[in-house]
Amino acid sequence: MTDEALGSRRLASRALAYQAFYRGRRVLVTGGLGFIGSTLAHQLVALGADVAIVDSRLKDAGAHPLNIAGIAAHVGLHIVDVRDRAAMNGLVRDREVIFNLAGQVSHIDSMRDPELDLEVNCRSHLALLEACRYHSPGTKVVFAGTRQVYGRPDSLPVDESHLVRPTDVNGINKVAGEYYHLVYNNVFNLRTCSLRLTNVYGPRQLVRHNRQGFIGWFIRLAVEGGVIQVYGDGAQIRDFVFVDDAADAFLRAGASDACNGEVFNVGGSEPISHRDLTTLLIETAGSGSVELVAWPADKKAIDIGSFYANSEKFRRATGWQPTVSLRDGLQRSVAYYRTHLAAYLADPDAAGVPA
Amino acid sequence: MTDEALGSRRLASRALAYQAFYRGRRVLVTGGLGFIGSTLAHQLVALGADVAIVDSRLKDAGAHPLNIAGIAAHVGLHIVDVRDRAAMNGLVRDREVIFNLAGQVSHIDSMRDPELDLEVNCRSHLALLEACRYHSPGTKVVFAGTRQVYGRPDSLPVDESHLVRPTDVNGINKVAGEYYHLVYNNVFNLRTCSLRLTNVYGPRQLVRHNRQGFIGWFIRLAVEGGVIQVYGDGAQIRDFVFVDDAADAFLRAGASDACNGEVFNVGGSEPISHRDLTTLLIETAGSGSVELVAWPADKKAIDIGSFYANSEKFRRATGWQPTVSLRDGLQRSVAYYRTHLAAYLADPDAAGVPA
Repeated sequence: MTDEALGSRRLASRALAYQAFYRGRRVLVTGGLGFIGSTLAHQLVALGADVAIVDSRLKDAGAHPLNIAGIAAHVGLHIVDVRDRAAMNGLVRDREVIFNLAGQVSHIDSMRDPELDLEVNCRSHLALLEACRYHSPGTKVVFAGTRQVYGRPDSLPVDESHLVRPTDVNGINKVAGEYYHLVYNNVFNLRTCSLRLTNVYGPRQLVRHNRQGFIGWFIRLAVEGGVIQVYGDGAQIRDFVFVDDAADAFLRAGASDACNGEVFNVGGSEPISHRDLTTLLIETAGSGSVELVAWPADKKAIDIGSFYANSEKFRRATGWQPTVSLRDGLQRSVAYYRTHLAAYLADPDAAGVPA
Repeated sequence: MTDEALGSRRLASRALAYQAFYRGRRVLVTGGLGFIGSTLAHQLVALGADVAIVDSRLKDAGAHPLNIAGIAAHVGLHIVDVRDRAAMNGLVRDREVIFNLAGQVSHIDSMRDPELDLEVNCRSHLALLEACRYHSPGTKVVFAGTRQVYGRPDSLPVDESHLVRPTDVNGINKVAGEYYHLVYNNVFNLRTCSLRLTNVYGPRQLVRHNRQGFIGWFIRLAVEGGVIQVYGDGAQIRDFVFVDDAADAFLRAGASDACNGEVFNVGGSEPISHRDLTTLLIETAGSGSVELVAWPADKKAIDIGSFYANSEKFRRATGWQPTVSLRDGLQRSVAYYRTHLAAYLADPDAAGVPA
């Protein structure tokens, strides 16, 4: 057997180990009605975990009852704000792994209402960590961080030694949330880590408005046959992670004590310009068109230029790597919204939770 | 005239310019009843500025009415919490420079009550910046940052290119507060900067309890003829800034648009071990003794080892440098508390504001 084949086999058996880890495991997913949280919940249910979901259904943040269609009967759903200490004290108890994806991710909203962003992205995490500190000290907590914390990069690709220099209030509050997790790991014996996600996309993503990153919005427009507006010359580069791969990253981090106390980039393997991405998307969808327009002032003010991540540290620690190509991921996203777009455009507050 | 002499003369004329800048200038000092804020207010009054002070007299945080003895009749004192948006909207209006020193600086308290620390060190700054954004957009804001944001340093001395890696909740919230100021500079056209202070000491410092850094506590013990406990072997190094020099740094930053959007270390020029510092202090005071004791667990958990700063960036930008030697500064501190210790040990809430 070649070294490479041996390596692959080892990787495969490691993969099996981290998946088997979740059989019967009591886990909690905060933000579990959201895009990534619900996808993770689907994977956890498939692996036989005992899954509880906490979600406050914060308006416009991405929670949607349809996101847990098919698993609703197999998860414990708690419509609770993570800031509700009394409720959280009970909910964290005896949970062995907590995937902490609660929050709001709109840069623009954070600049309009910075104090709300502080509540949702800072106080909520402090409340969760305090609940764990006093009521579930052995728990592992995996935090959904973001590449936003780096701001405008000094050089590409960006690894974890890059300075933290957020360009908007959301980025600041997200990094404070991340630092809390690390301090509670170092000081209070929780086991925590943070995954700094780049641009995640795929089924179950919020597409109702365009204040939460552009990729979901572009997919919606392509499906609707609309005009996709790309700012400036479209030469800006980003990397994209398909949501199943992002959820897999959480599974691996949650099962690995080698990750404790660390931050990891979790990015895609095919950096691409906005222009080329849009072309690929329109080609994949067979609908939509593109238009280059000038930058709106409020977006330009917090723009960071090109960005793509080096995720080697996380690959070394857990064996994770993206498995879904951008073309396949876009295809699966388009197919999902061809079926479900109407439901995702409707007010999610009006929708019930499916059985 | 030699180059050096020419340089000194230029520096002197620049110094005069930044001081003259404050004559008749409408300024606001948040946390102005506190240690550094009140010292700054004294200097501003001496320079002929129109000084308003905002202070919430947060319990145990360092506000003391005695701190403005001698200038109370010359400042507008507002006992207001900076989080009170309605009050702050009016107070920031037409203020040309705001020195933002409100906050609490106890590492230990932040670990006991992290949500209070979040309120005082994050929400308050967001509230102030929002007030400026909507009611005083031309204002210059100088923020009191801290070397805590660096955590345990990778190498010494530490300059501003060092990674931010706070080791406690207070450090996290302080850096979030700092980042808010920078974002409001970059996005909303405020003019802001942050001074990352190292260990500041001197008259008017809180000495009632020992949860706010050790230097004030050590000075009190020396004055009382008590036993100063030094943790471990006392080999840890720190740098110290006398409070008059720290206040001068604020004056220079407030008068210089070259500082906008930047962070600066403001540290002392004589790094010294805890052991040698204690020896110097006892010698200066002519009283007190020292004892080496084991680290308490809660302090060890958030300790950062040795630290001293490289303040060259700030010196280049403004010409600032420390002018008070450690020996002189300790002497002046000891003399102050020989006179005022009883007042500083009494409950400051019970004391009135002097005329």
